[in-house]
Amino acid sequence: MTEMEHANWQSVRTLVTGGLGFIGSNLVHRLHALGATVVVVDALIPGHGGNRANLDGLGNDVKVIIGDLRDRDLMENLVATQDVIFNLAGQISHEDSMRDPFTDLEHNTRAPLTLLEACRTTNPNVRIVFTGTRQQYGRPQYVPVDERHPMRPVDVNGVNKWAGEYYHLLYHDVYGMRTCSLRLTNCYGPRQVTDRHTQGAFPFFIGRALARQPITLYDEGEFKRDINFVDDVVEALLLAGENDAAIGEPFNLGSPPITLREFVETLGAVVGDVDVHYIPYPPQRKRIEIGDTYCEYGKISRTLNWLPRTSLHDGLKQTIAWHRAHGS
Amino acid sequence: MTEMEHANWQSVRTLVTGGLGFIGSNLVHRLHALGATVVVVDALIPGHGGNRANLDGLGNDVKVIIGDLRDRDLMENLVATQDVIFNLAGQISHEDSMRDPFTDLEHNTRAPLTLLEACRTTNPNVRIVFTGTRQQYGRPQYVPVDERHPMRPVDVNGVNKWAGEYYHLLYHDVYGMRTCSLRLTNCYGPRQVTDRHTQGAFPFFIGRALARQPITLYDEGEFKRDINFVDDVVEALLLAGENDAAIGEPFNLGSPPITLREFVETLGAVVGDVDVHYIPYPPQRKRIEIGDTYCEYGKISRTLNWLPRTSLHDGLKQTIAWHRAHGS
Repeated sequence: MTEMEHANWQSVRTLVTGGLGFIGSNLVHRLHALGATVVVVDALIPGHGGNRANLDGLGNDVKVIIGDLRDRDLMENLVATQDVIFNLAGQISHEDSMRDPFTDLEHNTRAPLTLLEACRTTNPNVRIVFTGTRQQYGRPQYVPVDERHPMRPVDVNGVNKWAGEYYHLLYHDVYGMRTCSLRLTNCYGPRQVTDRHTQGAFPFFIGRALARQPITLYDEGEFKRDINFVDDVVEALLLAGENDAAIGEPFNLGSPPITLREFVETLGAVVGDVDVHYIPYPPQRKRIEIGDTYCEYGKISRTLNWLPRTSLHDGLKQTIAWHRAHGS
Repeated sequence: MTEMEHANWQSVRTLVTGGLGFIGSNLVHRLHALGATVVVVDALIPGHGGNRANLDGLGNDVKVIIGDLRDRDLMENLVATQDVIFNLAGQISHEDSMRDPFTDLEHNTRAPLTLLEACRTTNPNVRIVFTGTRQQYGRPQYVPVDERHPMRPVDVNGVNKWAGEYYHLLYHDVYGMRTCSLRLTNCYGPRQVTDRHTQGAFPFFIGRALARQPITLYDEGEFKRDINFVDDVVEALLLAGENDAAIGEPFNLGSPPITLREFVETLGAVVGDVDVHYIPYPPQRKRIEIGDTYCEYGKISRTLNWLPRTSLHDGLKQTIAWHRAHGS
């Protein structure tokens, strides 16, 4: 946990969409610890990472509603009484978005639009923090990728997340609503699904290491990525929800870049031993591979005083310890 | 009509979505004159500008299907046998998109995605020319706006059109499909609806002038815009559909900028007399007003040898003559 000072979250009324998912549930635990009133809405859509067990330990303090953001009546009821909404629900799998682009469209585009319309009509002064993704930028034309980098997504997920984010910025620009967006990069930490490669390479590697199974890297594993420990992401979400300077703006998260190989080596050091295989890049994966990509996070550092404070080694230690304590 | 040389369109099998609309129907007339085989699909959604009378004079040469692009089975049947698809269907009203963002989402996002998926599965080698809009860019950070200008749409229509366009570019990048996009600016010409201000200020002015009604300009009418005569837009569509250099790329259209006042003065000279009133800018319109905006069209000039060849005076003369001959 960070030592940073926060605004007073005591009794602040918050709604977390996707609050049973990986990042959402970590945020809920933190908000609860800070004394906020937390309502969770999550559709528990298979493959999206939501799991009731992610809120174990919170008892009845957090109200959980299993429902779909596309349900306008439900959303109007839910948003009307909130102070801050963390809008994290969505589909994150790039491969799923190519196999079934229409489902991705529903969850990443219609759903946030419904939430925004519900807020506009019932609670236009609410603070809303959306989570976008570096995937919106597509293949980098330069690194590190800053917020002004041209956008050319390489999958349907990136297009739809872009639209979902820009609805939020638009509702600020046109209606004066108090929205902002954090563009997340790779994340890892407790409560992440680690047994499906469609959730991303890093958690998949963690799952393999935990299961004492070999890890396969394509080519030499030399592509560079940035990666954030989930506590640092939660920290950014809180800062974005409490600082007026965030309103109307998109912000990258990020970290100093590491190679996939470096990640796996650190993981091996933490777990004890990891067997790594190197194979040529499979063509069907290479066509959506975007090369080195990592984000410039100076804007959020300057504006909200956020930094990725957790070292990879410490973050992996906490992650592995959590998984060993909680099983899969 | 232009004097340019074209590739041989004789017997080329073309599909025009939104082919009963303003630009679509002008394209259909031109394709028919060039000897192409033309199929039109149009949902005739009220307010979208589609009108069966727009194809008057073509007899049974053009097959017209009243259907919705979101109908996957229909689309698979329609696209399977085409050589070139001009994907023009969509909602263009900025105000309608704010009043009912979900309908705009359906027509500008789900519809093109359905067409692309149908092509991918039944006819992945077809050429597809999409029509985007300058509205994707939003409020200009500089003028003229080039294709690398950051995008921050000022209405839901701009977000959804962006997504619709980027699906096309994405399906090129990932699947190698032969897509491109033209980002249209203001257009005018025969067959345009001129009695609804939600279709844009310029056609509305034309309608008022035709009806001998006064025209209202906000402030001094000094905002600069670009505007294309529809024959020039049709020319760009043909060039984009026949040149491999267009594949995978977005292109702005545009013209040398004019002020709204200059447009109205030229219109007055053509029509005979126009009564112009100047009033302060109404606040509810000003919030979606984006100031001077016009596009840089050097990329399409260099790549496809396109220019806006029709003068405003000549274009308005043809437009007014057409409306007087055809009534409303």
